[in-house]
Amino acid sequence: MDLTVYLAGQIHDNWRNELKEKAIKLELPIHFVGPMENHERSDAIGEEIKGNQPNAIMKDEAASEINNLRTQVLLGKSDVVLALFGESYKQWNSAMDAATAITLGKPLILVRPESLHHPLKELSNKAQVTVENTDQALKALSYILETN
Amino acid sequence: MDLTVYLAGQIHDNWRNELKEKAIKLELPIHFVGPMENHERSDAIGEEIKGNQPNAIMKDEAASEINNLRTQVLLGKSDVVLALFGESYKQWNSAMDAATAITLGKPLILVRPESLHHPLKELSNKAQVTVENTDQALKALSYILETN
Amino acid sequence: MDLTVYLAGQIHDNWRNELKEKAIKLELPIHFVGPMENHERSDAIGEEIKGNQPNAIMKDEAASEINNLRTQVLLGKSDVVLALFGESYKQWNSAMDAATAITLGKPLILVRPESLHHPLKELSNKAQVTVENTDQALKALSYILETN
Amino acid sequence: MDLTVYLAGQIHDNWRNELKEKAIKLELPIHFVGPMENHERSDAIGEEIKGNQPNAIMKDEAASEINNLRTQVLLGKSDVVLALFGESYKQWNSAMDAATAITLGKPLILVRPESLHHPLKELSNKAQVTVENTDQALKALSYILETN
Amino acid sequence: MDLTVYLAGQIHDNWRNELKEKAIKLELPIHFVGPMENHERSDAIGEEIKGNQPNAIMKDEAASEINNLRTQVLLGKSDVVLALFGESYKQWNSAMDAATAITLGKPLILVRPESLHHPLKELSNKAQVTVENTDQALKALSYILETN
Amino acid sequence: MDLTVYLAGQIHDNWRNELKEKAIKLELPIHFVGPMENHERSDAIGEEIKGNQPNAIMKDEAASEINNLRTQVLLGKSDVVLALFGESYKQWNSAMDAATAITLGKPLILVRPESLHHPLKELSNKAQVTVENTDQALKALSYILETN
Amino acid sequence: MDLTVYLAGQIHDNWRNELKEKAIKLELPIHFVGPMENHERSDAIGEEIKGNQPNAIMKDEAASEINNLRTQVLLGKSDVVLALFGESYKQWNSAMDAATAITLGKPLILVRPESLHHPLKELSNKAQVTVENTDQALKALSYILETN
Amino acid sequence: MDLTVYLAGQIHDNWRNELKEKAIKLELPIHFVGPMENHERSDAIGEEIKGNQPNAIMKDEAASEINNLRTQVLLGKSDVVLALFGESYKQWNSAMDAATAITLGKPLILVRPESLHHPLKELSNKAQVTVENTDQALKALSYILETN
Repeated sequence: MDLTVYLAGQIHDNWRNELKEKAIKLELPIHFVGPMENHERSDAIGEEIKGNQPNAIMKDEAASEINNLRTQVLLGKSDVVLALFGESYKQWNSAMDAATAITLGKPLILVRPESLHHPLKELSNKAQVTVENTDQALKALSYILETN
Repeated sequence: MDLTVYLAGQIHDNWRNELKEKAIKLELPIHFVGPMENHERSDAIGEEIKGNQPNAIMKDEAASEINNLRTQVLLGKSDVVLALFGESYKQWNSAMDAATAITLGKPLILVRPESLHHPLKELSNKAQVTVENTDQALKALSYILETN
Repeated sequence: MDLTVYLAGQIHDNWRNELKEKAIKLELPIHFVGPMENHERSDAIGEEIKGNQPNAIMKDEAASEINNLRTQVLLGKSDVVLALFGESYKQWNSAMDAATAITLGKPLILVRPESLHHPLKELSNKAQVTVENTDQALKALSYILETN
Repeated sequence: MDLTVYLAGQIHDNWRNELKEKAIKLELPIHFVGPMENHERSDAIGEEIKGNQPNAIMKDEAASEINNLRTQVLLGKSDVVLALFGESYKQWNSAMDAATAITLGKPLILVRPESLHHPLKELSNKAQVTVENTDQALKALSYILETN
Repeated sequence: MDLTVYLAGQIHDNWRNELKEKAIKLELPIHFVGPMENHERSDAIGEEIKGNQPNAIMKDEAASEINNLRTQVLLGKSDVVLALFGESYKQWNSAMDAATAITLGKPLILVRPESLHHPLKELSNKAQVTVENTDQALKALSYILETN
Repeated sequence: MDLTVYLAGQIHDNWRNELKEKAIKLELPIHFVGPMENHERSDAIGEEIKGNQPNAIMKDEAASEINNLRTQVLLGKSDVVLALFGESYKQWNSAMDAATAITLGKPLILVRPESLHHPLKELSNKAQVTVENTDQALKALSYILETN
Repeated sequence: MDLTVYLAGQIHDNWRNELKEKAIKLELPIHFVGPMENHERSDAIGEEIKGNQPNAIMKDEAASEINNLRTQVLLGKSDVVLALFGESYKQWNSAMDAATAITLGKPLILVRPESLHHPLKELSNKAQVTVENTDQALKALSYILETN
Repeated sequence: MDLTVYLAGQIHDNWRNELKEKAIKLELPIHFVGPMENHERSDAIGEEIKGNQPNAIMKDEAASEINNLRTQVLLGKSDVVLALFGESYKQWNSAMDAATAITLGKPLILVRPESLHHPLKELSNKAQVTVENTDQALKALSYILETN
């Protein structure tokens, strides 16, 4: 049995690649999907596809159309959603993806430092699992796949 | 025809009462519901009901159980969800409530200052209506109820 | 038992009022809802609420946000959707509302002149009832409410 | 990861083949499905299967049964729906397929010339992506499949 | 608490009125709905609304459009569906209404003489309750409403 | 693209095998599933699995448990349901399977002789396609799979 | 705003009446529903309605039909489900009702003594709120209804 | 056609392995999944992943998060759920998994000794099949897969 896992969260550092490499070392049959991680490309994709926009707001609107298309398709094909929150950035997309997963009946693994417990307490209460780092999240995914 | 509208967003100032008073002046047949706005009470409700908890994290967990119960019932009975974002606070609950509404097929009115356009662009793209203040949101609600 | 019926279709003549008056004469316990019928207001509602927009396309986008909000709420509260097609106008909104109703499991009454049979044949095949004028549609609605 | 994309829209010119050839050149792992593009066959399929019908209307009804069967199966198996509108034809089927996709939770890419912005503004507002030509739509589909 | 109950089954004798009178005597707060019981009117309703049809089959098709509209609305508003089968008639509509209720998550009370056990065994297995007469069905409905 | 088709209907003659052989000759990539066609085995399966039952009614109840299990799994995995009605037998199972498919959003092909038009008119109106024999049904299935 | 609350759990003592009396004293606008609490009647209801059964198992089967009918209707009409577990009895019905509520998207309040934490840990993890007595549960229900 | 079957029930003896071995001998194309059967590991998995917890209750809570994640994913991927109840243990998880399956529209096979008929009568009434041992359950699964 294989699993597809959507990796929601900020795209400003290399956390997804580190997680994927660990999964490969553990030989876990997991296929990871997620948002465009090239931040500049993600912000520019609207103009790349739809041409130059008259101002920054419309550039953003064009980009959000395309990024949401990607998320809707890939999150819809996933068995589990993992959402990582850190100290930086507003991360409202991460919260949106997390709540979408929960409402669609897909299990959510919330990864956040303990320091963020208070502002994330309601989301943590709705998540199926809350952990503090991606190593713990990988162990939880691995546990699903263990045969007896 | 009456409407029930859930008011998601931070609970640190008086924005909901101001909005309700304006709706009363306009004689709109709208019933507003929302989270507990007494912030201290909201944070303490877990211990109020379940008794003292051993530490701050467990106090938070107890509170989030009860606050999520309230949100699940009241948001579920609403026809429209209005989510207000401001410059302060992390507001991950607001994003969670907004995405829950969208996924349940309930229309979302997103209220945010233009300065927050970039971090909210994906949520704005999913919202049915995005405006900059609650006066505009009230006009949109009023427009639903106008007969020809 | 009362019924709520959403009246989808063009807003360029007085067909909804004529239908409502007939229903009143027949003393049918039906509550009719529908789009804003003041065409100029419908096109201007985006700027009325969100302020002046830089060009015609953005004026349209602002208007469609608010009109879709109204439709989502009112169609969602309806028991039956009646969609009227005529010879004029593109009427893609009418087709959109009709297909939305069918997919949500709400019965659709399609009203169209026989001359439009060919281009509407697939929609007619999905509609619960297809008739040629609103008098026939009213009789069908009345039949639902007849007690034995 | 492969994608299945339903191509809704008129069947009077060769736009689907052109799009498929471009996708092949780009080596995109996309499987395209859609309506019968042989227009005469599409109109005649009812009589081909059910035998001669007494008049043009019944010929149409028989054809719409079979064409809707094809659409229901193929659109139901798709990950994304692309609906193309042009200047000609009534295209109510395209609007019906587009709204069906949205209501089923499948993302819609709307392709239409800017000249059609006004009559399609409500559908565009509900679509996940709106672009002006199929090259742009292909780029959006390709973006879903890009790995980081 | 009131209940709405849809009475599916043949329309050739007076069983619905007898059941309603018993419910009135028992002062049960139940609102009964169901198909048109005037058999001639039910068969003629298509032509009554849509005008004369060229042959018996098209007369039937017109009638089924309108009768299905009535059923879809009234069954959709019901809390419980009661389906009665007797020795006569094909009663495929009754089986259709019963299976529709079950699939929609509405409880079904199946009423049938023991002599029909064999051909109805699969439907009986899916029904929430199977009894042999309407007195028993009324007792089951009454039991729902009893307070402790 | 392959299709899975559930063949609902009576199990007293060889119609399913004839249909399957025709599909093989036409090289259609269709996988057919359906109920147990060995009638004696179907009636005896409850006792075969659960042991002797005290009377005929309980033997029937035991059989219906197992037959409904098979139907629920196989119909749930199908893309299309084909339901065949003939002049003989009560065929309430066929009507139940047909209505279940429609309510689940699966397209139904109804196959029945024209002589049964009147008692099946409401089910025919809900079916996506109504034809008179299985050759016609196979052509409709084949049409779904034709590429342009 | 009123709430309807289903009270799942054993029917061997008077806990529901005590809870209802407390709610009346607190003037909470809550309507409580639940299973038949007269245990003998609950076990006998199958024979009361369907007549004498040949053995204890069939008496049980007849009773479960009717009791499940009552539960399906009343739980379906509820906004919140409260499930109470105690030290005695197997209480598999309580677990069934609790899981049904969760899967239907209705919030569950789990009431159980701390001594039962271990065997109920997975259900507690899925419940929206877990408390140890009905006073705490009433406070949680009251909190939903507090206006700011 | 292959089937995936979730094996719910207690994890204190070797019943799942015995069932799997019988299925292999019968060459049934069934893939079995289920909970972690190593009881100590199942109870310890919370601490294994999330680190030491301050007390037994929090150890349980951590374990239930991870065990429920596993169940939600594997039960969600299953075609049939088999739930086995025995004389020992509270088995509230088994009842929870069984009711979840039923509410999700997945068929449930209930396996229990006849001695447990009374306390399981309501769950048995909702199950698609009730049998007394796993040999009977395997025969029922095998019957789904038999071709005619």
